Amino acid sequence: MERYDIAVIGTGPAGLEAAITAKVRNKSVLLIGGKGSSDKVSKAHMVQNYLGLPNIAGDEMAKAFLDHAKEMGVEITEDKVNAVYSMGSYFALQCHGGDYEASSVIVAAGMTAMKPFDGEMENLGRGVSYCATCDAALYKGKTAIIVAYSAEDEPEAEFLAERADTVYYLPQYAYSGSLGNNIKVTTGVKPVSIQMNDGKAVLNTDGEIFTADGIFILREQIAPSQLVPGLTMDGNHIAVDRSMKTNIKGLFACGDITGAPYQYIKAAGEGNVAALSAVSYLNDLKKSQN
Amino acid sequence: MERYDIAVIGTGPAGLEAAITAKVRNKSVLLIGGKGSSDKVSKAHMVQNYLGLPNIAGDEMAKAFLDHAKEMGVEITEDKVNAVYSMGSYFALQCHGGDYEASSVIVAAGMTAMKPFDGEMENLGRGVSYCATCDAALYKGKTAIIVAYSAEDEPEAEFLAERADTVYYLPQYAYSGSLGNNIKVTTGVKPVSIQMNDGKAVLNTDGEIFTADGIFILREQIAPSQLVPGLTMDGNHIAVDRSMKTNIKGLFACGDITGAPYQYIKAAGEGNVAALSAVSYLNDLKKSQN
Repeated sequence: MERYDIAVIGTGPAGLEAAITAKVRNKSVLLIGGKGSSDKVSKAHMVQNYLGLPNIAGDEMAKAFLDHAKEMGVEITEDKVNAVYSMGSYFALQCHGGDYEASSVIVAAGMTAMKPFDGEMENLGRGVSYCATCDAALYKGKTAIIVAYSAEDEPEAEFLAERADTVYYLPQYAYSGSLGNNIKVTTGVKPVSIQMNDGKAVLNTDGEIFTADGIFILREQIAPSQLVPGLTMDGNHIAVDRSMKTNIKGLFACGDITGAPYQYIKAAGEGNVAALSAVSYLNDLKKSQN
Repeated sequence: MERYDIAVIGTGPAGLEAAITAKVRNKSVLLIGGKGSSDKVSKAHMVQNYLGLPNIAGDEMAKAFLDHAKEMGVEITEDKVNAVYSMGSYFALQCHGGDYEASSVIVAAGMTAMKPFDGEMENLGRGVSYCATCDAALYKGKTAIIVAYSAEDEPEAEFLAERADTVYYLPQYAYSGSLGNNIKVTTGVKPVSIQMNDGKAVLNTDGEIFTADGIFILREQIAPSQLVPGLTMDGNHIAVDRSMKTNIKGLFACGDITGAPYQYIKAAGEGNVAALSAVSYLNDLKKSQN
């Protein structure tokens, strides 16, 4: 498996700047995230204080960022990261679309509202999971519930339904899909809490109660402490120092995920610092291996 | 005297971004520095990793930054700051062109090589000074040495020479001026060390030795610890936390002056954070005064 120098998670301003700076420093970069930069950028009405781009609409700013990345030869791998494991001298990234390896990781996944449901964290890995494709093999002849936040989750439901007997699909977005057969779609219900009952996962909603062998919650973003086991948090944010180091050697974080202010230029500035800290880490790593 | 909400020192990316963000937040801003942004920006050959402005030449980048500031109604006051004093609930800024007051201060003065001469720091305020116009009144009938780093210092020499008997002017730049009369210009000599001898200031150079009642060193930039008495340093840099706070309440710092990496987007990102921290400080200040 190719081992990248730096894996960057997130394609908002922090992630794009980190990837560009890493590229300038001749590092091989795996940039994972949405092809359209972050929603927070592209959907912004008007941004006044990104120095150099006066009074720019969010979609234009996203285009300027993505064009810059393209011009530098930075490619976006459209995928979702399920977990990042430190393996000592490298990291293993478990993604929905496959697995990757990188010598260092920069987490720039942004900050979306993602209050877990009651019972979600307690039952994570024991009935609750964030990646249906990863666990599909375990669901032969079984039933599963999918709580989905994007139309992009629909292929994941179909993949799981090839193995599972029945998949209950609860879209939390404007659903206009055509899932069918053994996928039972219920729109307009909001999950409230999760509990395990006699080995079955029970999802309470503001309407019907769903029971199955497991529940998949396909959030746009996973809580950082779940994404990277052992990561030290500062409240809801990843704890970093001014060089964007986390408590895990070789793993850096930048942008909104490291705390307020949630501003584009702050995120980009931190992406730059994180990339240069990663480059410095890689140099030290190389020396220690020689 | 008008008291500004925020005084920003420096017109590089950190200072410009700080001023713009402060303006967006409806604060009154005094932005002090060179009208052409920083030399480090305008003289850059090509910058590859300022996200959103791909492969841009330094002079174009400076123009983009300055245009942005202009569009936001941010004006640059072309002056040099000699000292910043915390007066409790506000700051007094002593500049070459006059004095100013501000409720908070953001230091974004950049990082130029400015190793002091041997004996400079020891004799600061006792024979050595950084502002000729400030001290001119004390030099009636006396002699003074000026070590100058820019053609912009020439009017300062002329002003001092109106009071002083003789001014020895040692330009450390390509001198093409026409200073005369009681201003004795010596080009091509480099200062080496300063000592006080029987109440006279002695400047040793790599050539001639100059003796006078006082020495003025008109550096582009004053060491931060001299600029702001009581400021806590981290080596050559101003010590800040991630919110760009210094040890002095209401005083913030950002950009190169807070440490490496010396990168444009890092500086701009920090300028944004410093401005928002200053805004938050001003809100707290207002509450405490009501």
